[in-house]
Amino acid sequence: MDSRFHQELDQLRGNVLKMATLTEQAIEKAFKALRERDIELSDEIITRDQDIDLLEMEIDRSILRLLALDQPMARDLRFLIGCMRISADLERIADQAVSIAHRARYLSKRPPLPEDPVMKRLIETSLDMLHVALSCFAKLSVDQAMDVCMMDDEVDELNTQVLKNLMDYMIHEVPAIQRGVQTIITARCMERVADHCTNIAESVVFIVRGVNIKHHCEQI
Amino acid sequence: MDSRFHQELDQLRGNVLKMATLTEQAIEKAFKALRERDIELSDEIITRDQDIDLLEMEIDRSILRLLALDQPMARDLRFLIGCMRISADLERIADQAVSIAHRARYLSKRPPLPEDPVMKRLIETSLDMLHVALSCFAKLSVDQAMDVCMMDDEVDELNTQVLKNLMDYMIHEVPAIQRGVQTIITARCMERVADHCTNIAESVVFIVRGVNIKHHCEQI
Repeated sequence: MDSRFHQELDQLRGNVLKMATLTEQAIEKAFKALRERDIELSDEIITRDQDIDLLEMEIDRSILRLLALDQPMARDLRFLIGCMRISADLERIADQAVSIAHRARYLSKRPPLPEDPVMKRLIETSLDMLHVALSCFAKLSVDQAMDVCMMDDEVDELNTQVLKNLMDYMIHEVPAIQRGVQTIITARCMERVADHCTNIAESVVFIVRGVNIKHHCEQI
Repeated sequence: MDSRFHQELDQLRGNVLKMATLTEQAIEKAFKALRERDIELSDEIITRDQDIDLLEMEIDRSILRLLALDQPMARDLRFLIGCMRISADLERIADQAVSIAHRARYLSKRPPLPEDPVMKRLIETSLDMLHVALSCFAKLSVDQAMDVCMMDDEVDELNTQVLKNLMDYMIHEVPAIQRGVQTIITARCMERVADHCTNIAESVVFIVRGVNIKHHCEQI
Protein backbone atom coordinates (compact mmCIF):
# COMPACT_ATOMS: atom_id res chain seq x y z
CA MET A 1 0.00 0.00 0.00
CA ASP A 2 1.32 3.43 -0.84
CA SER A 3 1.69 6.39 1.46
CA ARG A 4 -1.41 8.07 -0.01
CA PHE A 5 -3.45 5.11 1.24
CA HIS A 6 -2.02 5.38 4.74
CA GLN A 7 -2.56 9.12 4.73
CA GLU A 8 -6.22 8.55 3.88
CA LEU A 9 -6.51 5.90 6.61
CA ASP A 10 -5.12 8.44 9.11
CA GLN A 11 -7.59 11.03 7.88
CA LEU A 12 -10.42 8.52 8.31
CA ARG A 13 -9.26 7.71 11.84
CA GLY A 14 -9.21 11.47 12.57
CA ASN A 15 -12.76 11.83 11.29
CA VAL A 16 -14.07 8.94 13.39
CA LEU A 17 -12.33 10.43 16.44
CA LYS A 18 -13.88 13.81 15.64
CA MET A 19 -17.30 12.15 15.36
CA ALA A 20 -16.66 10.36 18.67
CA THR A 21 -15.85 13.68 20.36
CA LEU A 22 -18.97 15.38 18.98
CA THR A 23 -21.13 12.43 20.04
CA GLU A 24 -19.63 12.32 23.52
CA GLN A 25 -20.25 16.07 23.86
CA ALA A 26 -23.85 15.63 22.71
CA ILE A 27 -24.49 12.97 25.36
CA GLU A 28 -22.75 15.01 28.07
CA LYS A 29 -24.82 18.06 27.12
CA ALA A 30 -28.03 15.97 27.08
CA PHE A 31 -27.35 14.82 30.65
CA LYS A 32 -26.52 18.41 31.65
CA ALA A 33 -29.74 19.69 30.06
CA LEU A 34 -31.66 17.06 31.98
CA ARG A 35 -29.93 17.82 35.28
CA GLU A 36 -30.00 21.60 35.01
CA ARG A 37 -33.41 21.79 33.30
CA ASP A 38 -31.87 23.77 30.47
CA ILE A 39 -34.19 24.23 27.47
CA GLU A 40 -31.69 26.26 25.41
CA LEU A 41 -29.08 23.54 25.74
CA SER A 42 -31.68 20.91 24.72
CA ASP A 43 -32.42 22.91 21.57
CA GLU A 44 -28.72 23.20 20.79
CA ILE A 45 -28.30 19.39 20.92
CA ILE A 46 -31.28 18.87 18.62
CA THR A 47 -30.06 21.45 16.07
CA ARG A 48 -26.43 20.32 16.01
CA ASP A 49 -27.19 16.63 15.47
CA GLN A 50 -26.93 17.20 11.72
CA ASP A 51 -23.18 17.92 12.04
CA ILE A 52 -22.80 14.34 13.29
CA ASP A 53 -25.02 12.96 10.51
CA LEU A 54 -22.94 14.77 7.88
CA LEU A 55 -19.70 13.47 9.38
CA GLU A 56 -21.06 9.92 9.30
CA MET A 57 -21.86 10.29 5.59
CA GLU A 58 -18.36 11.64 4.90
CA ILE A 59 -16.84 8.69 6.80
CA ASP A 60 -18.95 6.19 4.83
CA ARG A 61 -17.85 7.80 1.56
CA SER A 62 -14.17 7.66 2.39
CA ILE A 63 -14.40 4.02 3.55
CA LEU A 64 -16.07 3.02 0.29
CA ARG A 65 -13.46 4.88 -1.75
CA LEU A 66 -10.66 3.16 0.15
CA LEU A 67 -12.29 -0.27 -0.22
CA ALA A 68 -12.86 0.22 -3.95
CA LEU A 69 -9.56 1.84 -4.93
CA ASP A 70 -7.07 0.20 -2.59
CA GLN A 71 -8.60 -3.20 -1.91
CA PRO A 72 -6.96 -3.46 1.49
CA MET A 73 -6.30 -6.75 3.28
CA ALA A 74 -6.06 -8.09 6.82
CA ARG A 75 -5.92 -5.44 9.53
CA ASP A 76 -6.44 -2.51 7.15
CA LEU A 77 -9.60 -4.16 5.85
CA ARG A 78 -10.79 -4.85 9.38
CA PHE A 79 -10.04 -1.25 10.33
CA LEU A 80 -12.26 0.03 7.51
CA ILE A 81 -15.12 -2.34 8.33
CA GLY A 82 -14.71 -1.56 12.04
CA CYS A 83 -14.83 2.20 11.39
CA MET A 84 -17.97 1.78 9.31
CA ARG A 85 -19.65 -0.03 12.19
CA ILE A 86 -18.37 2.36 14.84
CA SER A 87 -19.53 5.45 12.97
CA ALA A 88 -23.01 3.87 12.61
CA ASP A 89 -23.06 3.25 16.38
CA LEU A 90 -21.89 6.81 17.08
CA GLU A 91 -24.65 8.20 14.89
CA ARG A 92 -27.21 6.17 16.84
CA ILE A 93 -25.75 7.31 20.17
CA ALA A 94 -26.12 10.90 18.93
CA ASP A 95 -29.77 10.12 18.07
CA GLN A 96 -30.23 9.05 21.70
CA ALA A 97 -28.75 12.39 22.80
CA VAL A 98 -31.44 14.10 20.69
CA SER A 99 -34.13 11.90 22.20
CA ILE A 100 -32.90 12.70 25.74
CA ALA A 101 -32.82 16.42 24.80
CA HIS A 102 -36.51 16.23 23.77
CA ARG A 103 -37.36 14.67 27.17
CA ALA A 104 -35.20 17.28 28.95
CA ARG A 105 -37.15 19.99 27.13
CA TYR A 106 -40.46 18.46 28.21
CA LEU A 107 -39.39 17.87 31.81
CA SER A 108 -37.75 21.30 32.25
CA LYS A 109 -41.12 22.99 31.75
CA ARG A 110 -42.78 20.94 34.51
CA PRO A 111 -42.24 20.50 38.26
CA PRO A 112 -39.18 18.33 38.98
CA LEU A 113 -39.55 14.72 40.09
CA PRO A 114 -37.74 13.80 43.34
CA GLU A 115 -34.09 12.92 42.77
CA ASP A 116 -33.43 9.20 42.32
CA PRO A 117 -29.88 8.11 43.23
CA VAL A 118 -30.29 5.06 40.95
CA MET A 119 -31.01 7.32 37.98
CA LYS A 120 -27.89 9.31 38.90
CA ARG A 121 -25.83 6.10 38.84
CA LEU A 122 -27.41 5.08 35.54
CA ILE A 123 -26.33 8.40 34.00
CA GLU A 124 -22.81 8.11 35.43
CA THR A 125 -22.36 4.49 34.39
CA SER A 126 -23.56 5.01 30.84
CA LEU A 127 -21.31 8.06 30.52
CA ASP A 128 -18.34 6.07 31.89
CA MET A 129 -19.10 3.33 29.42
CA LEU A 130 -19.04 5.79 26.55
CA HIS A 131 -15.69 7.24 27.72
CA VAL A 132 -14.14 3.77 28.02
CA ALA A 133 -15.53 2.50 24.69
CA LEU A 134 -14.23 5.58 22.85
CA SER A 135 -10.87 5.32 24.57
CA CYS A 136 -10.64 1.67 23.40
CA PHE A 137 -11.09 2.96 19.85
CA ALA A 138 -8.74 5.94 20.22
CA LYS A 139 -5.95 3.67 21.51
CA LEU A 140 -7.04 0.69 19.43
CA SER A 141 -6.59 -1.30 22.60
CA VAL A 142 -8.75 -4.19 23.78
CA ASP A 143 -7.57 -4.01 27.41
CA GLN A 144 -10.73 -2.28 28.58
CA ALA A 145 -13.19 -3.84 26.15
CA MET A 146 -14.23 -6.40 28.75
CA ASP A 147 -14.98 -3.57 31.21
CA VAL A 148 -17.42 -2.10 28.68
CA CYS A 149 -19.30 -5.40 28.45
CA MET A 150 -19.48 -5.68 32.24
CA MET A 151 -20.75 -2.12 32.57
CA ASP A 152 -23.48 -2.98 30.07
CA ASP A 153 -24.89 -5.56 32.50
CA GLU A 154 -24.78 -2.92 35.24
CA VAL A 155 -26.66 -0.42 33.06
CA ASP A 156 -29.34 -3.02 32.33
CA GLU A 157 -29.80 -3.67 36.05
CA LEU A 158 -29.88 0.05 36.90
CA ASN A 159 -32.42 0.67 34.16
CA THR A 160 -34.67 -2.11 35.54
CA GLN A 161 -34.39 -0.54 39.00
CA VAL A 162 -35.19 2.98 37.71
CA LEU A 163 -38.24 1.56 35.94
CA LYS A 164 -39.41 -0.14 39.15
CA ASN A 165 -38.83 2.98 41.27
CA LEU A 166 -40.69 5.22 38.84
CA MET A 167 -43.65 2.88 38.52
CA ASP A 168 -43.93 2.70 42.33
CA TYR A 169 -43.73 6.48 42.47
CA MET A 170 -46.39 7.02 39.81
CA ILE A 171 -48.83 4.71 41.63
CA HIS A 172 -48.66 7.04 44.62
CA GLU A 173 -48.33 10.28 42.68
CA VAL A 174 -50.77 10.15 39.80
CA PRO A 175 -50.21 13.77 38.63
CA ALA A 176 -46.58 12.74 37.95
CA ILE A 177 -47.48 9.94 35.50
CA GLN A 178 -46.57 11.84 32.34
CA ARG A 179 -43.26 13.05 33.75
CA GLY A 180 -42.61 9.54 35.08
CA VAL A 181 -43.17 7.98 31.67
CA GLN A 182 -40.88 10.53 29.98
CA THR A 183 -38.21 9.73 32.57
CA ILE A 184 -38.62 5.98 31.92
CA ILE A 185 -38.10 6.69 28.21
CA THR A 186 -34.99 8.74 29.08
CA ALA A 187 -33.58 5.82 31.08
CA ARG A 188 -34.20 3.50 28.14
CA CYS A 189 -32.27 5.93 25.91
CA MET A 190 -29.31 5.47 28.25
CA GLU A 191 -29.65 1.71 28.02
CA ARG A 192 -29.47 2.03 24.23
CA VAL A 193 -26.37 4.25 24.50
CA ALA A 194 -24.84 1.43 26.57
CA ASP A 195 -25.76 -1.17 23.93
CA HIS A 196 -24.03 0.89 21.24
CA CYS A 197 -20.97 1.28 23.49
CA THR A 198 -20.81 -2.51 23.71
CA ASN A 199 -20.97 -2.70 19.91
CA ILE A 200 -18.09 -0.21 19.68
CA ALA A 201 -15.96 -2.28 22.09
CA GLU A 202 -16.76 -5.38 20.01
CA SER A 203 -15.71 -3.56 16.83
CA VAL A 204 -12.38 -2.59 18.44
CA VAL A 205 -11.75 -6.26 19.38
CA PHE A 206 -12.58 -7.18 15.79
CA ILE A 207 -10.11 -4.61 14.38
CA VAL A 208 -7.28 -5.52 16.75
CA ARG A 209 -7.68 -9.30 17.09
CA GLY A 210 -9.66 -10.23 13.99
CA VAL A 211 -12.30 -12.09 15.98
CA ASN A 212 -16.01 -11.48 16.06
CA ILE A 213 -17.20 -11.45 19.67
CA LYS A 214 -20.75 -10.24 18.94
CA HIS A 215 -23.06 -12.15 21.28
CA HIS A 216 -20.00 -13.64 23.04
CA CYS A 217 -18.51 -10.86 25.10
CA GLU A 218 -16.89 -13.32 27.52
CA GLN A 219 -14.42 -14.40 24.81
CA ILE A 220 -12.29 -11.23 24.89
CA MET B 1 -14.66 -12.22 -11.17
CA ASP B 2 -14.84 -16.01 -11.44
CA SER B 3 -17.89 -18.18 -11.07
CA ARG B 4 -16.85 -19.26 -7.56
CA PHE B 5 -17.17 -15.63 -6.48
CA HIS B 6 -20.64 -15.32 -7.95
CA GLN B 7 -21.65 -18.61 -6.40
CA GLU B 8 -20.56 -17.30 -3.01
CA LEU B 9 -22.43 -14.03 -3.60
CA ASP B 10 -25.58 -16.06 -4.34
CA GLN B 11 -25.03 -18.08 -1.20
CA LEU B 12 -24.65 -14.88 0.81
CA ARG B 13 -27.85 -13.49 -0.68
CA GLY B 14 -29.59 -16.73 0.28
CA ASN B 15 -28.35 -16.43 3.85
CA VAL B 16 -29.51 -12.82 4.19
CA LEU B 17 -32.91 -13.83 2.80
CA LYS B 18 -33.03 -16.72 5.28
CA MET B 19 -32.18 -14.33 8.10
CA ALA B 20 -34.87 -11.94 6.84
CA THR B 21 -37.46 -14.76 6.90
CA LEU B 22 -36.50 -15.82 10.43
CA THR B 23 -36.61 -12.22 11.64
CA GLU B 24 -39.97 -11.56 10.01
CA GLN B 25 -41.33 -14.74 11.62
CA ALA B 26 -39.98 -13.66 15.02
CA ILE B 27 -41.76 -10.30 14.77
CA GLU B 28 -45.00 -11.92 13.54
CA LYS B 29 -44.85 -14.40 16.42
CA ALA B 30 -44.13 -11.61 18.91
CA PHE B 31 -47.25 -9.74 17.79
CA LYS B 32 -49.26 -13.00 17.93
CA ALA B 33 -47.96 -13.72 21.46
CA LEU B 34 -49.01 -10.22 22.47
CA ARG B 35 -52.45 -10.47 20.87
CA GLU B 36 -53.24 -14.02 22.01
CA ARG B 37 -51.53 -13.71 25.42
CA ASP B 38 -49.41 -16.74 24.61
CA ILE B 39 -46.57 -17.37 27.11
CA GLU B 40 -45.24 -20.49 25.36
CA LEU B 41 -44.89 -18.63 22.08
CA SER B 42 -43.10 -15.77 23.90
CA ASP B 43 -40.61 -18.27 25.31
CA GLU B 44 -40.06 -19.79 21.88
CA ILE B 45 -39.16 -16.37 20.40
CA ILE B 46 -36.71 -15.70 23.23
CA THR B 47 -35.01 -19.12 22.89
CA ARG B 48 -34.76 -19.11 19.10
CA ASP B 49 -33.18 -15.65 18.83
CA GLN B 50 -29.76 -17.28 18.92
CA ASP B 51 -30.39 -18.91 15.50
CA ILE B 52 -30.62 -15.39 14.08
CA ASP B 53 -27.48 -14.27 15.96
CA LEU B 54 -25.53 -17.25 14.58
CA LEU B 55 -26.72 -16.54 11.05
CA GLU B 56 -25.61 -12.91 11.37
CA MET B 57 -22.13 -14.06 12.40
CA GLU B 58 -21.94 -16.47 9.44
CA ILE B 59 -23.02 -13.67 7.08
CA ASP B 60 -20.36 -11.33 8.50
CA ARG B 61 -17.70 -14.03 8.05
CA SER B 62 -18.58 -14.68 4.44
CA ILE B 63 -18.69 -10.95 3.60
CA LEU B 64 -15.23 -10.45 5.07
CA ARG B 65 -13.86 -13.45 3.19
CA LEU B 66 -15.29 -12.14 -0.08
CA LEU B 67 -13.93 -8.63 0.56
CA ALA B 68 -10.47 -9.96 1.40
CA LEU B 69 -10.12 -12.64 -1.28
CA ASP B 70 -11.99 -11.18 -4.22
CA GLN B 71 -11.63 -7.45 -3.75
CA PRO B 72 -14.90 -6.71 -5.54
CA MET B 73 -15.72 -3.38 -7.15
CA ALA B 74 -18.75 -1.23 -7.94
CA ARG B 75 -22.09 -2.93 -7.46
CA ASP B 76 -20.60 -6.16 -6.02
CA LEU B 77 -18.78 -4.12 -3.38
CA ARG B 78 -21.94 -2.18 -2.58
CA PHE B 79 -23.87 -5.44 -2.36
CA LEU B 80 -21.44 -6.78 0.25
CA ILE B 81 -21.47 -3.58 2.32
CA GLY B 82 -25.27 -3.37 1.97
CA CYS B 83 -25.68 -6.99 3.14
CA MET B 84 -23.47 -6.29 6.15
CA ARG B 85 -25.66 -3.35 7.13
CA ILE B 86 -28.92 -5.17 6.43
CA SER B 87 -27.94 -8.21 8.50
CA ALA B 88 -27.04 -5.89 11.42
CA ASP B 89 -30.49 -4.26 11.11
CA LEU B 90 -32.20 -7.65 10.94
CA GLU B 91 -30.39 -8.77 14.08
CA ARG B 92 -31.61 -5.66 15.88
CA ILE B 93 -35.17 -6.18 14.65
CA ALA B 94 -34.97 -9.71 16.06
CA ASP B 95 -33.80 -8.22 19.38
CA GLN B 96 -36.96 -6.12 19.37
CA ALA B 97 -39.01 -9.28 18.82
CA VAL B 98 -37.34 -10.68 21.97
CA SER B 99 -38.10 -7.49 23.87
CA ILE B 100 -41.76 -7.59 22.75
CA ALA B 101 -41.90 -11.28 23.74
CA HIS B 102 -40.74 -10.37 27.28
CA ARG B 103 -43.54 -7.76 27.53
CA ALA B 104 -46.06 -10.26 26.09
CA ARG B 105 -44.98 -12.73 28.78
CA TYR B 106 -45.48 -10.09 31.49
CA LEU B 107 -48.83 -8.84 30.14
CA SER B 108 -50.25 -12.33 29.51
CA LYS B 109 -50.12 -13.09 33.21
CA ARG B 110 -52.13 -9.98 34.13
CA PRO B 111 -55.63 -8.65 33.31
CA PRO B 112 -55.82 -7.34 29.75
CA LEU B 113 -55.88 -3.61 29.03
CA PRO B 114 -58.78 -2.36 26.89
CA GLU B 115 -58.10 -2.73 23.17
CA ASP B 116 -56.66 0.37 21.52
CA PRO B 117 -57.35 0.64 17.77
CA VAL B 118 -54.31 2.94 17.42
CA MET B 119 -52.05 0.22 18.87
CA LYS B 120 -53.58 -2.22 16.39
CA ARG B 121 -52.73 0.15 13.53
CA LEU B 122 -49.21 0.60 14.91
CA ILE B 123 -48.71 -3.18 14.86
CA GLU B 124 -50.12 -3.50 11.33
CA THR B 125 -48.12 -0.59 9.95
CA SER B 126 -44.81 -1.73 11.41
CA LEU B 127 -45.45 -5.24 10.10
CA ASP B 128 -46.31 -3.87 6.63
CA MET B 129 -43.16 -1.81 6.73
CA LEU B 130 -41.08 -4.89 7.49
CA HIS B 131 -42.71 -6.83 4.61
CA VAL B 132 -42.10 -3.99 2.15
CA ALA B 133 -38.50 -3.36 3.29
CA LEU B 134 -37.63 -7.06 2.99
CA SER B 135 -39.33 -7.29 -0.39
CA CYS B 136 -37.19 -4.31 -1.57
CA PHE B 137 -34.13 -6.36 -0.61
CA ALA B 138 -35.40 -9.67 -2.06
CA LYS B 139 -36.09 -8.01 -5.43
CA LEU B 140 -33.23 -5.53 -5.13
CA SER B 141 -35.75 -2.95 -6.23
CA VAL B 142 -35.99 0.63 -5.03
CA ASP B 143 -39.57 1.14 -6.27
CA GLN B 144 -41.04 0.75 -2.80
CA ALA B 145 -38.19 2.21 -0.77
CA MET B 146 -39.94 5.58 -0.61
CA ASP B 147 -43.07 3.86 0.79
CA VAL B 148 -40.97 2.51 3.65
CA CYS B 149 -39.75 5.99 4.56
CA MET B 150 -43.28 7.36 4.47
CA MET B 151 -44.58 4.53 6.65
CA ASP B 152 -41.84 5.38 9.16
CA ASP B 153 -43.41 8.82 9.69
CA GLU B 154 -46.78 7.14 10.17
CA VAL B 155 -45.33 4.74 12.77
CA ASP B 156 -43.80 7.69 14.66
CA GLU B 157 -47.18 9.44 14.75
CA LEU B 158 -49.04 6.29 15.81
CA ASN B 159 -46.49 5.68 18.56
CA THR B 160 -46.96 9.23 19.88
CA GLN B 161 -50.73 8.68 19.86
CA VAL B 162 -50.43 5.31 21.69
CA LEU B 163 -48.22 6.98 24.30
CA LYS B 164 -50.79 9.74 24.82
CA ASN B 165 -53.73 7.32 25.02
CA LEU B 166 -51.95 5.10 27.53
CA MET B 167 -50.89 8.00 29.75
CA ASP B 168 -54.49 9.29 29.80
CA TYR B 169 -55.69 5.80 30.66
CA MET B 170 -53.18 5.32 33.47
CA ILE B 171 -54.19 8.61 35.09
CA HIS B 172 -57.73 7.27 35.45
CA GLU B 173 -56.80 3.66 36.11
CA VAL B 174 -53.91 3.68 38.56
CA PRO B 175 -53.80 -0.13 39.07
CA ALA B 176 -53.00 -0.42 35.33
CA ILE B 177 -49.83 1.72 35.54
CA GLN B 178 -47.37 -1.16 35.31
CA ARG B 179 -49.17 -2.80 32.41
CA GLY B 180 -49.51 0.61 30.75
CA VAL B 181 -45.78 1.27 31.02
CA GLN B 182 -44.95 -2.19 29.61
CA THR B 183 -47.29 -1.47 26.69
CA ILE B 184 -45.63 1.89 26.10
CA ILE B 185 -42.27 0.07 25.95
CA THR B 186 -43.79 -2.44 23.49
CA ALA B 187 -44.94 0.40 21.24
CA ARG B 188 -41.44 1.88 21.33
CA CYS B 189 -40.06 -1.50 20.24
CA MET B 190 -42.28 -1.26 17.17
CA GLU B 191 -40.99 2.23 16.48
CA ARG B 192 -37.46 0.82 16.56
CA VAL B 193 -38.43 -1.99 14.18
CA ALA B 194 -39.68 0.73 11.84
CA ASP B 195 -36.38 2.65 12.13
CA HIS B 196 -34.44 -0.47 11.17
CA CYS B 197 -36.81 -1.06 8.23
CA THR B 198 -35.97 2.46 7.02
CA ASN B 199 -32.27 1.60 7.30
CA ILE B 200 -32.85 -1.56 5.23
CA ALA B 201 -34.64 0.43 2.51
CA GLU B 202 -31.75 2.92 2.52
CA SER B 203 -29.25 0.08 2.14
CA VAL B 204 -31.18 -1.30 -0.85
CA VAL B 205 -31.09 2.16 -2.50
CA PHE B 206 -27.35 2.24 -1.80
CA ILE B 207 -26.81 -1.20 -3.40
CA VAL B 208 -28.92 -0.49 -6.48
CA ARG B 209 -28.18 3.18 -7.16
CA GLY B 210 -24.89 3.73 -5.38
CA VAL B 211 -26.19 6.72 -3.45
CA ASN B 212 -26.31 7.21 0.28
CA ILE B 213 -29.75 8.51 1.26
CA LYS B 214 -29.24 8.19 5.03
CA HIS B 215 -30.87 11.24 6.61
CA HIS B 216 -32.25 12.26 3.17
CA CYS B 217 -35.04 9.84 2.45
CA GLU B 218 -36.74 12.31 0.13
CA GLN B 219 -33.93 11.86 -2.43
CA ILE B 220 -34.99 8.39 -3.61
